[in-house]
Amino acid sequence: MGKSRMEAFSDGVIAIIVTIMVLEMKAPEGTSWEIMKPLVPKFLSYGLSFLGVAIYWVNHHHLVHTISRVTPGILWANINLLFWLSLVPVATAWMGENHFEKTTVTAYAVLCLLCAVAYNILQKAIVSGNKKNQIVNDVVRPMGYKEIGSIMLYSLSIPVAHFINPVISGFMFLTVSLLWLIPDKKIEKALND
Amino acid sequence: MGKSRMEAFSDGVIAIIVTIMVLEMKAPEGTSWEIMKPLVPKFLSYGLSFLGVAIYWVNHHHLVHTISRVTPGILWANINLLFWLSLVPVATAWMGENHFEKTTVTAYAVLCLLCAVAYNILQKAIVSGNKKNQIVNDVVRPMGYKEIGSIMLYSLSIPVAHFINPVISGFMFLTVSLLWLIPDKKIEKALND
Amino acid sequence: MGKSRMEAFSDGVIAIIVTIMVLEMKAPEGTSWEIMKPLVPKFLSYGLSFLGVAIYWVNHHHLVHTISRVTPGILWANINLLFWLSLVPVATAWMGENHFEKTTVTAYAVLCLLCAVAYNILQKAIVSGNKKNQIVNDVVRPMGYKEIGSIMLYSLSIPVAHFINPVISGFMFLTVSLLWLIPDKKIEKALND
Amino acid sequence: MGKSRMEAFSDGVIAIIVTIMVLEMKAPEGTSWEIMKPLVPKFLSYGLSFLGVAIYWVNHHHLVHTISRVTPGILWANINLLFWLSLVPVATAWMGENHFEKTTVTAYAVLCLLCAVAYNILQKAIVSGNKKNQIVNDVVRPMGYKEIGSIMLYSLSIPVAHFINPVISGFMFLTVSLLWLIPDKKIEKALND
Repeated sequence: MGKSRMEAFSDGVIAIIVTIMVLEMKAPEGTSWEIMKPLVPKFLSYGLSFLGVAIYWVNHHHLVHTISRVTPGILWANINLLFWLSLVPVATAWMGENHFEKTTVTAYAVLCLLCAVAYNILQKAIVSGNKKNQIVNDVVRPMGYKEIGSIMLYSLSIPVAHFINPVISGFMFLTVSLLWLIPDKKIEKALND
Repeated sequence: MGKSRMEAFSDGVIAIIVTIMVLEMKAPEGTSWEIMKPLVPKFLSYGLSFLGVAIYWVNHHHLVHTISRVTPGILWANINLLFWLSLVPVATAWMGENHFEKTTVTAYAVLCLLCAVAYNILQKAIVSGNKKNQIVNDVVRPMGYKEIGSIMLYSLSIPVAHFINPVISGFMFLTVSLLWLIPDKKIEKALND
Repeated sequence: MGKSRMEAFSDGVIAIIVTIMVLEMKAPEGTSWEIMKPLVPKFLSYGLSFLGVAIYWVNHHHLVHTISRVTPGILWANINLLFWLSLVPVATAWMGENHFEKTTVTAYAVLCLLCAVAYNILQKAIVSGNKKNQIVNDVVRPMGYKEIGSIMLYSLSIPVAHFINPVISGFMFLTVSLLWLIPDKKIEKALND
Repeated sequence: MGKSRMEAFSDGVIAIIVTIMVLEMKAPEGTSWEIMKPLVPKFLSYGLSFLGVAIYWVNHHHLVHTISRVTPGILWANINLLFWLSLVPVATAWMGENHFEKTTVTAYAVLCLLCAVAYNILQKAIVSGNKKNQIVNDVVRPMGYKEIGSIMLYSLSIPVAHFINPVISGFMFLTVSLLWLIPDKKIEKALND
């Protein structure tokens, strides 16, 4: 199993996830500007998820680029990540349609956490399947502040959404996105060397 | 017809099948946790099919990797497999929406059997189109316990769903998935040698 | 503009067309076998279109394989073909939902004709953009019995559906498909030489 | 981050956008020709957007082809463009369903402008990330009459749709499309030299 085909399959699935999300934004019935108002939370919800999934794509690419050997473990850790990502459109639609109501934001936060954990499992699978790979050992193995920060922020955003204020959780999601916006410089540097 | 384009087309179709399935999981109306309960069987049904189609993707890749010549027979056996796989989302939705009711599970079992038979036809087409290919002769030709076991389990799951208990059929589907989870070691070994 | 990217884009669009068609086959409400009866014409309609679009994919691939130079004319003739193909899912759904009622079959026949004409325009664009290419001159330039037969059968199927019997038109569609089932041997032979 | 993967991801997203748009054209209920009349504005709206997005694909390809280095800035400018393009299907459906009513055409015009601006931002990001690249400096840097004309026409089409006549705006969209129909000859020439 070459990594190029795993990349191609992941790219396909992520491209579809990113694009079908917008299908949930139905054209409003009627033609006044008033009627577009309820679209605003849907639009924000869509924008947030588009950004989030795009970030997964960028970082996934960097991560997989370091691999020299695809084991069945890596393959299934990758499919596991794609599975949780594929649920993002439903969670996004639920949150957007209900104007960031607290139950829906809590569900969204749980899903974000599951995706982040799945990403970490993929990292672990890559490390244990590429033990002789210098770049993997140096760059992928040590859990950085990004990985730890994301898991902590997502974990925290669950009770925050439920007990305090879902809007704060929204800003926590955004914070995680900003952490990952710039693709991992360590990987880029290691690959260039 | 190079095999790389057949792979690319198959990857595209399978990636879309896997991802549009989730479109059937509509965002629930309302925002209580109660309301998510009917989503549970849909989610299980989706998870089962996601796993099943992902397994087809992994094994399809291994199988096609052995080919040295793409004949029209292989091409159409492949399109035939994609056709039956493309019906998985509808069958999954029907089963999930009706909480694994026996008629829907029976229909799902019939579709699983048809997909498995289509996969076997593809194997046969590959064998008869690549007679001089050593790997195909050694690894693809002999029907293994996996192929026979899958066809038998799916065949059995049809009357089991209809006359005994659809939940047992569900576990039979899962058993077949577990059989195929690890991609074929014989192929991997033969390719490495 | 390399032809590989034109191929990749066409593959993507065709793979999506083929797969979203099945989205029109909604899971029936209720769980009796009775309830599946109205699915039968939808299924036949879907099968017919799946076969038709898959055939376009196979032959499109063979055709594009002969090209040595992609001109803007070829590029836009290709996009024109994809446009008409993208309407196949709607026409398929209309025909299937209405049990091959004559108006819907007539509309489907018109669309088939438009796709076939678009394919011919693409062939012409390839010929006029690759004048020095031997294979194009020998194999793509002369209109064969397949091209003429398809256009004639589709043209005929329009009045047949409207004035005589839509089922006869259905068999005419199938006849065209069978004509094209085996990818063009002339091209295959020319490429091998 | 190689540019080939950025191209592949963009191709995937654009292919999906172009194809899911047609999902908005639901099969009409009933079977008379009368019933197809309301489909005409939807069809026109779809055709306009299909052409527009296809043009983005063609020109995007030419633009990216000149790049020698993919910076994070280029990556995110590209994702930004894909985001706005992904909203085209909703705007198209809204405009088509409401027979080019002025509010919907105004919204469509605003989206067209945003896409055009996003494309310009991508051009700027490419220029500032590839300063030593001769082709980028010669061909991509100077804003041509096409870029300026598009932005001006789209900007103008917003008040025209709202205050004068949405049909005139429709023709302005078409004019922009015709401007870009032929892929940039400067780039093609520069690449050939």
